Amino acid sequence: MFRQLMTFDAARRLIDEMIKPESSSEEVSLLEAYNHVLQENVVSTFDIPPFNRSTVDGYAVRASDTFSAEENQPAILKLRGIINVGEIPKMKIEKGEAANIVTGAPIPEGADSVVMVENTETENGKLLRVYRAVTKDQNIMKKGTDIRKDEKVLKTGRILGASEIGVLAALGIAKIRVLKTPIVAVLSTGGEISEPGKKLPAGKIFDINAYSLSTGVLESGGKPVNLGVVPDDRTELRNALEHALAIADVVLTSGGVSVGPKDLAPQIVDSLGKPGVLISGIAVKPGKPTTIGLIGKKPVFSLPGHPTSALLMFHLLVRPVIQQMAGKSPIEAKVVRALAAARMFSAKGRRTFVMVNLKRNEANNIIANPVETGASGAITTLAKADGFVEIPENQQFIDMNEEISVTLLKNSP
Amino acid sequence: MFRQLMTFDAARRLIDEMIKPESSSEEVSLLEAYNHVLQENVVSTFDIPPFNRSTVDGYAVRASDTFSAEENQPAILKLRGIINVGEIPKMKIEKGEAANIVTGAPIPEGADSVVMVENTETENGKLLRVYRAVTKDQNIMKKGTDIRKDEKVLKTGRILGASEIGVLAALGIAKIRVLKTPIVAVLSTGGEISEPGKKLPAGKIFDINAYSLSTGVLESGGKPVNLGVVPDDRTELRNALEHALAIADVVLTSGGVSVGPKDLAPQIVDSLGKPGVLISGIAVKPGKPTTIGLIGKKPVFSLPGHPTSALLMFHLLVRPVIQQMAGKSPIEAKVVRALAAARMFSAKGRRTFVMVNLKRNEANNIIANPVETGASGAITTLAKADGFVEIPENQQFIDMNEEISVTLLKNSP
Repeated sequence: MFRQLMTFDAARRLIDEMIKPESSSEEVSLLEAYNHVLQENVVSTFDIPPFNRSTVDGYAVRASDTFSAEENQPAILKLRGIINVGEIPKMKIEKGEAANIVTGAPIPEGADSVVMVENTETENGKLLRVYRAVTKDQNIMKKGTDIRKDEKVLKTGRILGASEIGVLAALGIAKIRVLKTPIVAVLSTGGEISEPGKKLPAGKIFDINAYSLSTGVLESGGKPVNLGVVPDDRTELRNALEHALAIADVVLTSGGVSVGPKDLAPQIVDSLGKPGVLISGIAVKPGKPTTIGLIGKKPVFSLPGHPTSALLMFHLLVRPVIQQMAGKSPIEAKVVRALAAARMFSAKGRRTFVMVNLKRNEANNIIANPVETGASGAITTLAKADGFVEIPENQQFIDMNEEISVTLLKNSP
Repeated sequence: MFRQLMTFDAARRLIDEMIKPESSSEEVSLLEAYNHVLQENVVSTFDIPPFNRSTVDGYAVRASDTFSAEENQPAILKLRGIINVGEIPKMKIEKGEAANIVTGAPIPEGADSVVMVENTETENGKLLRVYRAVTKDQNIMKKGTDIRKDEKVLKTGRILGASEIGVLAALGIAKIRVLKTPIVAVLSTGGEISEPGKKLPAGKIFDINAYSLSTGVLESGGKPVNLGVVPDDRTELRNALEHALAIADVVLTSGGVSVGPKDLAPQIVDSLGKPGVLISGIAVKPGKPTTIGLIGKKPVFSLPGHPTSALLMFHLLVRPVIQQMAGKSPIEAKVVRALAAARMFSAKGRRTFVMVNLKRNEANNIIANPVETGASGAITTLAKADGFVEIPENQQFIDMNEEISVTLLKNSP
């Protein structure tokens, strides 16, 4: 059967144009909001601080009572008790009076400034000697100077880190509306696939893709829901995909369907709703049997069964979609320049990605060694590769010692 | 009361020398292991693949039966049925026989190669015509070629990403030993502090630090446990700290104790165990009233109550300790070069940190604007600052238009 494969660039463009997944918002507690994207404009409902506060330990006074005070001629005031933090002072400071006040406590009525304790002396707890004049408002943080009532404090779209969450707490907000974490259903297909953690049945291999792809979903800012291995049957696969579309925002399958025609999976995806299959086969190596569909607004990515191919296609095509839904600007993959350790061939007419690991040679140059892929090394390639080299469709090979760009697979340091 | 403050550099050195928190390991499921540090050497207990597999759809044959096959003179073999994935073939392929086989299925006994379906034709499902010769082992992935039994696959210390978790799944591993996430107890002190989410009592302000610091703990790779606001009382504070030390690996308090002497908190920390308080007051601005103690192997950080000071001290002194416990190499804070938008003064004899925000001017230079701190702007500083400028103890000020280094507060993009 001949099928015209879509070029890699055309596939990327089509994904950009067609897949505009809907993001929704949800209300979460402040600490759950960490690293999420704010989905409301936050306006202060009260003044912060909500009252005039002392910024020092000292005595609340009327500034005019201290104007003549100096080292040799203290002002003498009558002491009216102590104002602690967290309580509303009941006294009013009259002319000639003072009240002991601690840092952060509300300024009592009548007082308009605070003398620092270092510039005073008390006598019997009844009289206060003030040795230095203060001016009006000195050592006071006025009500609303930090945030005014009705002030716009944080705008929708802001990514919430430690500072922003601190500000929300200051406003007394305990729950906040953020972009919902995209839910990504992860399914494995293939009659030879078995769940890790149990004894391996004869003739089977353990499921790799569900775990590597779910981790990729986490790295991209999504929440993976592992729906396990789908039995090798047309009806079972259809039911599993319908269930996945019902509970998730994005569906991710890997592996082929072993029974029935090779294009059974695309046929089923196409039957689930409109617009259906967008891409069925891409002129890349590895990753050719990648199928991408859209059911309503929900993308369905059917990746190959080969673990390295599946993870590479995830990295190139799926990750940007999840990142966009999570409200994160796509993190530019890190690229390093390296020297090819061997000649690397491309597949004719296909964009070719060669997995490589990186080492430094004696001259301190970074050397890119191709990691054996294909039939053997299917799994270990995953653990050994640091990144990949991209060879354009019209180029036959990269030569040994040629300077090349290597895209790193891990964004984390 | 005169107290000799420790220099900032001496405080950092002392933390490096004295605080060697114990890391412990825990067993988690594969997906929980994402971004954790592996704490065991992983050895394969079986060959991968566990059997010789076909890498193509085609026919399992004895290669010697095809040696003479060519386009005009096909080899003719007797068909022995089909071998699907996930099942152990029951037949044995004798000389002159072939069995239909799908990609990934086990090679039957007797066969030593697979002819691709493209190079064959069948007749009545009984006879197979092979139009191209195959060599021994062609289109077969041999047992153990990916990972051999007893092969060391992953070494302790490896950070687990998508590839590594895929490899663990391939080995059938469902639970894995990783470095335990450090538990950080977060307490707020101060009689004026009230929990967000409830009505603000008169004379109080909402708790900011518990939320900004807990988020900082998350960012550093720890798990915050918010123990809430501790009532303003010596016994309550002592009890809360003892509880915190019992349940957490690191204790983080913020704010002062309003009743009693100013050094009540350090006194209590010192009474909890040996070696006790290591640092009580640092010659920095802001952040001077920072106390750091060590009870057994567990560090206790008492940060100031001012939100910006607390978060800055967290960033400079606490984060590296948590990152180290989480097994992450400390992420180098990002530094950008900028021009000072105004003269910024240092505090005499203290390492001074000035919070700044960054903008580009018309000439496309990055301009660092100091954000008002101190008494006012206590909370909004958090939201407005992009980073900080460090002024050494012996320097009086940074001049306007001077080129300076700004350390960014956020590591995430």
